[in-house]
Amino acid sequence: MLQQRSRKFLCSLTSAVSSVPRSSFYQCRRAYSLHADAAVAKPKALDATKLSITKTTTPKTPLPSEELVFGRTFTDHMLSVEWTASEGWLDPQINPYQNLSLDPATCVFHYGFECFEGMKAYKDKQGNIRLFRPEMNMTRLNKSSARIALPTFDSAAFIELIAKFCKLEERFIPSTKGYSLYLRPTMIGTQRTLGVGPPGSALLFMIASPVGPYYPTGFKAVSLEATTYAVRAWPGGVGDKKIGANYAPAILPQLQAASRGFHQNLWLFGEEEYVTEVGTMNLFAAIINKETGQKELLTAPLDGTILEGVTRDSVLGLARERLVPEGWHITERKFTMKELADAAEEGRMLEVFGSGTAAIVSPVRKISWRGRMVECGLPEDKEAGPVAQRMKDWIEGIMYGEEEHQWSHKI
Amino acid sequence: MLQQRSRKFLCSLTSAVSSVPRSSFYQCRRAYSLHADAAVAKPKALDATKLSITKTTTPKTPLPSEELVFGRTFTDHMLSVEWTASEGWLDPQINPYQNLSLDPATCVFHYGFECFEGMKAYKDKQGNIRLFRPEMNMTRLNKSSARIALPTFDSAAFIELIAKFCKLEERFIPSTKGYSLYLRPTMIGTQRTLGVGPPGSALLFMIASPVGPYYPTGFKAVSLEATTYAVRAWPGGVGDKKIGANYAPAILPQLQAASRGFHQNLWLFGEEEYVTEVGTMNLFAAIINKETGQKELLTAPLDGTILEGVTRDSVLGLARERLVPEGWHITERKFTMKELADAAEEGRMLEVFGSGTAAIVSPVRKISWRGRMVECGLPEDKEAGPVAQRMKDWIEGIMYGEEEHQWSHKI
Repeated sequence: MLQQRSRKFLCSLTSAVSSVPRSSFYQCRRAYSLHADAAVAKPKALDATKLSITKTTTPKTPLPSEELVFGRTFTDHMLSVEWTASEGWLDPQINPYQNLSLDPATCVFHYGFECFEGMKAYKDKQGNIRLFRPEMNMTRLNKSSARIALPTFDSAAFIELIAKFCKLEERFIPSTKGYSLYLRPTMIGTQRTLGVGPPGSALLFMIASPVGPYYPTGFKAVSLEATTYAVRAWPGGVGDKKIGANYAPAILPQLQAASRGFHQNLWLFGEEEYVTEVGTMNLFAAIINKETGQKELLTAPLDGTILEGVTRDSVLGLARERLVPEGWHITERKFTMKELADAAEEGRMLEVFGSGTAAIVSPVRKISWRGRMVECGLPEDKEAGPVAQRMKDWIEGIMYGEEEHQWSHKI
Repeated sequence: MLQQRSRKFLCSLTSAVSSVPRSSFYQCRRAYSLHADAAVAKPKALDATKLSITKTTTPKTPLPSEELVFGRTFTDHMLSVEWTASEGWLDPQINPYQNLSLDPATCVFHYGFECFEGMKAYKDKQGNIRLFRPEMNMTRLNKSSARIALPTFDSAAFIELIAKFCKLEERFIPSTKGYSLYLRPTMIGTQRTLGVGPPGSALLFMIASPVGPYYPTGFKAVSLEATTYAVRAWPGGVGDKKIGANYAPAILPQLQAASRGFHQNLWLFGEEEYVTEVGTMNLFAAIINKETGQKELLTAPLDGTILEGVTRDSVLGLARERLVPEGWHITERKFTMKELADAAEEGRMLEVFGSGTAAIVSPVRKISWRGRMVECGLPEDKEAGPVAQRMKDWIEGIMYGEEEHQWSHKI
């Protein structure tokens, strides 16, 4: 029964041998759409009210919390919406989680037409499902997709679809604090041609993976290796977009760092060796400013080379609200590796941490840079500095609805 | 019958709902391999002698030559070889052309684990099938895949597989000069996990599309727009690799150029506005050198930001062999847009052309740059300069075996 439904969803495999210049995955579904909306001429906007749901007939048992591994096991269903240049967004569907069947000439396999988001659904003590600033993820996904010639969509409509999906998969959202359902909205180009050009069709889909806390037994500070031989992003490039292109090329420097015993690599930029990002996180440094003597929480500015992290923005927002009254200066500005090393040497280094959806904050103990080891201010018996600790507590409190805040989106 | 065979190849769709952290596409095939090679412990090298062929039961009729569109229609079969980190390269297969069935969490959809090659098979007057410098494509594919943490393979073994594939698909290789069978070797990461890391499994596949000449009625010189607001590649980046990451971000500047009536965009680099590449081609300029008064054929050096074009290398090789005796100076060096504009203004511009597998050479009439129009030396009634014309004739002569040359690989 499932198999039959899957086959319909994925189209007949025999169509793969046809020579029509489109993915047969798309073709098949488009045929349905044409049948239903033959009179529509203008490309349609994404419409959450058109959602159809086909439930699985073989529901899984959610794994015990202690067996969860990030991004390895998924819920019973997936959300998908097809787009074509002529018709716009077709009717959204929730179907049993299943393979994508795509012609080997599909542009996503050749030219990197892919972008995604990482976000989470949380369950609060009252049993409500909550999202954290989902409109920021939607805005970023639209910016990413537009930059690689994929379509944009109505953010509110997709958030409505995410909400419906989360309700359907509610039993996969762990109720313990620190646990959540990781959501992965993804857009891929599905046009079937080797010609390099803007895709005439695309698929927006979302899968979901239940995940545990990044630090199940409390913080573990990481060590970083500053990468001086490879560059992640550059002015006029696409380093601020969450697109596939930014990830595969980042693996080797990560493996290089790991081979020398470091958890992550730290991306520098330019002859000045500006500090940009760490692995797949934004980076914050808390120092005593040399000139002013004031406590300063620093992060690189959004100049097009930095991923526009939702957690980064949240840390900055909370810092401006809650740390400034304590005498902190909060700055988005360029700063160099040398500036960090000097701060460490002169006793002005307070703490360093990464920020991202996976860990919220990730404290840094030390950074290897050109043969030197820059200590980041953590006492040997501590795994996190006070700013990182408070940021995690504040943000998590909002995520799980312990503090009522406009950033938490109850669904 | 075909459907049954396809289903076996693509694995049972029901396995998509399992929670094992690998692509089910890969899982299914690996089971066969384990059965056959249970005793093998060391990862296996690519072995062309292990090829198995399953022919289509519904062969297509090749399209008439005049209906061929680049990369839209494909031959009856596809070549594929799976790789896993523990087993190495599994036995190669030629199967009927069909869809790839991949879990939506497969890393190729999220993190850009994909690289490819563009090459062609030609039929000479004697009916032999020929490849052009295939070892260069294999070397480049290995460099591309290694840079994005995908596996490398034995070049000679894959060329042997390509040869077997071309013989099987011989009836799809047009016999008219200028026509060919475009070959697209592609490697994708197939690991099924959202964790960002080196893929534990990959698929190397090749599809083939019969193509006509880029200029069916003779050269048509193109106009370019110099892109000053976006940057294709950076030192320390991956601009010299043929990976998906370099293509999707290049579409918008191309569309921008097209919206103002230009055929392609020209990528510049840095404040100096160095000339790097045009669209998806390398660029050559023939000028009279200001200092020496000598004829100079210029192209950007392979500094890591330039695609290492096979045609680029062939143009350079032939130029050094055949143009130097005529008094030409052949140089790989950085040159700026201003240098080109000055040459045009001072009557020292001879001609400009792109080079690539699709067109061999593509003459350029003019370049729009910061509000100026730089004329590239072509008389109004000409569509190609003499260097471009001779390069095309020389290279095509070798490709089609009219001139015996070590670059032509008879299979």
